[in-house]
Amino acid sequence: MSIVRNGVNVDQLIGTVNAIKDNPDLAHFHFRAANEWVSGGHSRTTIQSFYGAGSEDTSRSGPFILEGDEPPVLLGSNAGPNAVEAVLHALASCLAVGFVYNAAAQGVQVDGLEFDLEGDIDLHGFLGLSEQIRPGYQNIRVSYRVKSDAPREKLEELCEYVQKTSPVLDIIRNPIPVSVTLAD
Amino acid sequence: MSIVRNGVNVDQLIGTVNAIKDNPDLAHFHFRAANEWVSGGHSRTTIQSFYGAGSEDTSRSGPFILEGDEPPVLLGSNAGPNAVEAVLHALASCLAVGFVYNAAAQGVQVDGLEFDLEGDIDLHGFLGLSEQIRPGYQNIRVSYRVKSDAPREKLEELCEYVQKTSPVLDIIRNPIPVSVTLAD
Repeated sequence: MSIVRNGVNVDQLIGTVNAIKDNPDLAHFHFRAANEWVSGGHSRTTIQSFYGAGSEDTSRSGPFILEGDEPPVLLGSNAGPNAVEAVLHALASCLAVGFVYNAAAQGVQVDGLEFDLEGDIDLHGFLGLSEQIRPGYQNIRVSYRVKSDAPREKLEELCEYVQKTSPVLDIIRNPIPVSVTLAD
Repeated sequence: MSIVRNGVNVDQLIGTVNAIKDNPDLAHFHFRAANEWVSGGHSRTTIQSFYGAGSEDTSRSGPFILEGDEPPVLLGSNAGPNAVEAVLHALASCLAVGFVYNAAAQGVQVDGLEFDLEGDIDLHGFLGLSEQIRPGYQNIRVSYRVKSDAPREKLEELCEYVQKTSPVLDIIRNPIPVSVTLAD
């Protein structure tokens, strides 16, 4: 019998950590996405394969499809959320996983977890109307609500730890090298 | 009659740029997302409202729902792509919009546009096994293919301009302040 807390198999989690301690190469992952433009602001991303834990993953029987588009005020047709909204989704889902997995590992039961996110953008950057105004978010605010019997200071300590180890928070808060190449 | 190129209403695009030149406040946008944890690595993001162009947007009759989860090797159940895969989607959909809108503005017809993205992660960071290894991507590689009659140097020039003005590329390449607060 294995311990499952917050929907997380804690024995598997400990096993994963120990396997990586024994063989650090198991920690190398390559994630992938392919995107095809449809029309106007609308494009479609396909996500399925990745490499990790020493081999190509085969767990997904089909791809995940994500639509991206702009709203009419930004010349699109609302076929999906736009790219900067998708960033907020990525951040929230990363913080959710981090909080719940670490809570499970530390014996904290989570009965509910919600995030509200807001980001501020000034379109002068995207539209090329100002060199001084950045194209990306100027600020992002995240507010968490946790339902748990654990004391508030424990939840705050968890929240701090999650911030230190969240992949997407790191990607947003700190610089990541990105190469962009026009293929032949 | 308005000019539509690459599915983009070029007259509306020029009108938007001119409206912002006349009233810079119209460029301020606030995008939002709400996320609710489901179980284990699975959470669900809802995206609908935003503020922009001087008012709350009402163009979306319902929310976009995005599922986030981990694959089994990362203790999830594949209910959706994971958070760092969602970052690749956000980046691709941003570059697609930027390329197609700027091509339309500059009179370049685009007949096809595809992106392949890959990002490298070392899980020592996320799992808290090393303070030296960052939790986020160490590198992201983006490769573009464009179908167009425009000369290659024109496409490369567009690609450079898009990189300078892409909101999500800025968010990934450069630091963004993020506040994370545990609500009462």
